[in-house]
Amino acid sequence: MAAPSQNLSRIGLAGLAVMGQNLALNIAEKGFPISVYNRTTSKVDETVERAKKEGNLPLYGFHDPESFVQSIQKPRVIIMLVKAGAPVDQTIKTLSVYMEKGDCIIDGGNEWYENTERREKAMAELGLLYLGMGVSGGEEGARNGPSMMPGGSYEAYKYIEDILLKVSAQVPDSGPCVTYIGKGGSGNFVKMVHNGIEYGDMQLISEAYDVLKSVGKLSNEELHHVFSEWNKGELLSFLVEITADIFKIKDDKGEGYLVDKVLDKTGMKGTGKWTVQQAADLSIAAPTIASSLDARFLSGLKDERVEAANVFKSGGFGDILTDQTVDKEKLINDVRQALYAAKICSYAQGMNLIRAKSVEQGWDLKLGELARIWKGGCIIRAVFLDRIKQAYDRNADLANLLVDPEFAKEMIERQSAWRQVVCLAINSGISTPGMSSSLAYFDTYRRARLPANLVQAQRDYFGAHTYERTDIPGSFHTEWFKLAKQS
Amino acid sequence: MAAPSQNLSRIGLAGLAVMGQNLALNIAEKGFPISVYNRTTSKVDETVERAKKEGNLPLYGFHDPESFVQSIQKPRVIIMLVKAGAPVDQTIKTLSVYMEKGDCIIDGGNEWYENTERREKAMAELGLLYLGMGVSGGEEGARNGPSMMPGGSYEAYKYIEDILLKVSAQVPDSGPCVTYIGKGGSGNFVKMVHNGIEYGDMQLISEAYDVLKSVGKLSNEELHHVFSEWNKGELLSFLVEITADIFKIKDDKGEGYLVDKVLDKTGMKGTGKWTVQQAADLSIAAPTIASSLDARFLSGLKDERVEAANVFKSGGFGDILTDQTVDKEKLINDVRQALYAAKICSYAQGMNLIRAKSVEQGWDLKLGELARIWKGGCIIRAVFLDRIKQAYDRNADLANLLVDPEFAKEMIERQSAWRQVVCLAINSGISTPGMSSSLAYFDTYRRARLPANLVQAQRDYFGAHTYERTDIPGSFHTEWFKLAKQS
Repeated sequence: MAAPSQNLSRIGLAGLAVMGQNLALNIAEKGFPISVYNRTTSKVDETVERAKKEGNLPLYGFHDPESFVQSIQKPRVIIMLVKAGAPVDQTIKTLSVYMEKGDCIIDGGNEWYENTERREKAMAELGLLYLGMGVSGGEEGARNGPSMMPGGSYEAYKYIEDILLKVSAQVPDSGPCVTYIGKGGSGNFVKMVHNGIEYGDMQLISEAYDVLKSVGKLSNEELHHVFSEWNKGELLSFLVEITADIFKIKDDKGEGYLVDKVLDKTGMKGTGKWTVQQAADLSIAAPTIASSLDARFLSGLKDERVEAANVFKSGGFGDILTDQTVDKEKLINDVRQALYAAKICSYAQGMNLIRAKSVEQGWDLKLGELARIWKGGCIIRAVFLDRIKQAYDRNADLANLLVDPEFAKEMIERQSAWRQVVCLAINSGISTPGMSSSLAYFDTYRRARLPANLVQAQRDYFGAHTYERTDIPGSFHTEWFKLAKQS
Repeated sequence: MAAPSQNLSRIGLAGLAVMGQNLALNIAEKGFPISVYNRTTSKVDETVERAKKEGNLPLYGFHDPESFVQSIQKPRVIIMLVKAGAPVDQTIKTLSVYMEKGDCIIDGGNEWYENTERREKAMAELGLLYLGMGVSGGEEGARNGPSMMPGGSYEAYKYIEDILLKVSAQVPDSGPCVTYIGKGGSGNFVKMVHNGIEYGDMQLISEAYDVLKSVGKLSNEELHHVFSEWNKGELLSFLVEITADIFKIKDDKGEGYLVDKVLDKTGMKGTGKWTVQQAADLSIAAPTIASSLDARFLSGLKDERVEAANVFKSGGFGDILTDQTVDKEKLINDVRQALYAAKICSYAQGMNLIRAKSVEQGWDLKLGELARIWKGGCIIRAVFLDRIKQAYDRNADLANLLVDPEFAKEMIERQSAWRQVVCLAINSGISTPGMSSSLAYFDTYRRARLPANLVQAQRDYFGAHTYERTDIPGSFHTEWFKLAKQS
């Protein structure tokens, strides 16, 4: 099972849960001999077994960390795919004792970027290199080609660039879905925002589903058909594709379709929360992503919601408010446009969040290049990302995707349908927090004058916070109270 | 100027900016001899001067910290009103060297609650007591009666309870606007959420203003009249009152009204941001507060907005989308109801955030009591808070204000007008992020079944995150991809 000493592995991978196992097999399949290790050794044997079955791939399993590390050619590179936080520190401790100057550890998990920066510094003191590398694509992506976001030591990136270029998803005309992101924890940060955007996409799709189902009365068959059609046009994307699939699946435990039996409680793992908190920290409005997080929180309060529905029902106030007859074809067409327009807003927020952090940290991130490596492999992969890449190609300093000439045109074309969908939902009592907060974002950002003058006047009234004027430079304070009592 | 040695001051106050100066005068006026100190000594003299002018109040100024501390009777209590963060640490350092076991320091600023907990521990090691006390009411409140939220050492609270009861705002039928909040940093935390709620109130009022002005074409005179009328009913509150005042004030530097000359950029100080970040941390949906923070962020991008308005104008897409003729009286009535209903949602979010933190920290906070002490003195003071107090009096464990029978009834009565206002705004291109995110919150919380089943199915599809079912207990995983490709 061990790699022969003359014939050391090119790379190692520690942590053989779903993502780790599949990424290791992917690397082996691309022709890079790989050593694998896991604390629970049955996972090692399972992975070795799979490597055999899937074509005698050059994958070598080890039950102890020392022989695992020593089976890798120098400078050694080991990818960890373990749970973020303490398990990462534990794994580093276990492996680093056997590693030598110039070796490198790569964390492939969803780690908080500051933890990566802390570890990179600690590793540097031992003479070891470190990368924090976001990996997106789920089980299937890890096995067949994920999108990878490595950040940290550029030297370490260069060691394994050849592997990453082959292992990552390959997109015709735009290349492998990997690039060196930047210094420090930038790879983790970009992956975190990717996940925030993913939250937004999923929420917007679920709202489209809700409106089509609850107002349009579409059946699961019709929904399957609609999402399949959408997946042929501007909405072509992994998430729309799997949504179409989901509506096809029959319940294996009863009558009807499985999706109707799935409990309406959504789990989460932390990256969406961090995205929202970072947006607040950096003064970036990210309402679409925030509303998707809130929707997950509220989905979790199932018992409270059932109780609330009863309270309002007993007050004569039902679930769906009006049973309007709608033109199904028009509704489907409108919802498609609303979904697309809201999506543009959501990506604008995510991209501006990344830029704000990049400026703060001096990471010099290239937004267009990020859009490019998201075109394949990852959960948010979509034809739409090419339009974003093009927008930043046209103008790398674009203040907001909304004002790119192409996107601005698309927004103008779709805004009327979008408003109709949101108002229809509101009048039906269906919440569309993602679509409506995106619309509010659009209508706020595109207006030269907002009612913020009143808020600032209030702040000056009660707290003497001062205000600026539209016509004269400077900072002003008015004795509002005194003047009001005089008049 | 020094207090005679036989006749020591009852309390001391350090930090004589606007809030400190006014609070010191307030305490002196209530008959408690007070010593005051400030690093910049001119502020000391200024305060002493004011104390003379405002009725020879028993206020004694000191230019050095040692004689300041020694002028106070034991156990000494000193309130600090300095900027949060490092200045607080600096002031503690300066004063604590002269203080003795059993003495107490109180931080009256908007401090991050964990800083207070850190300092309380450090003080305890020196035998000193510590309180973090939120103080709301601005300049005027500090002088004439603020709302005060002291948390930390109960022993220290008891030392000065008599002072706080007299100095705080007095509300007929419900007493002084102060109570012992709870242990640790709970006083700061509650004040932080108070400020988050304040952000929400201000945003909602500004949206009401925007709709009435931009769609209803109300003049400033009419707006003054509307807000004055509103201030006689269910919306009676400090913020509505000052809003009415603001519309009266003529520009002293030109033609017309001052509010129209105030630049539409809103500043902020951090507590709103913390509130949003804490909500995310505690899995509490707080979209109204979050949208008010986002509105402040976007207001700050004035140049970008002017540029965006030009981009869309050149695409044939103007500021206000339709010039609808509206029935002014009906609009005013509808907006009033929308404002009130959205406000209920915002307070529901804030209260649930406080409860979640209280549970996490074991603070045992009393939500009804918090509503009571906010009835007077503070920026969000309002007749409405009595309704909240009553709701928690009826049921201290109320899951959400929305399901209190009285509030539920009010929501049902107002929801139709609310929907009309939001849709009118949407169709006019006016953003109402606070009102619409509140409505989405309401329509999400009150629904027994949400489209979160689809999101969870997606998560299980690409990440094997599993799902629960509506009909059978347990955790399930489906091979969605395989099944879809088979069918």
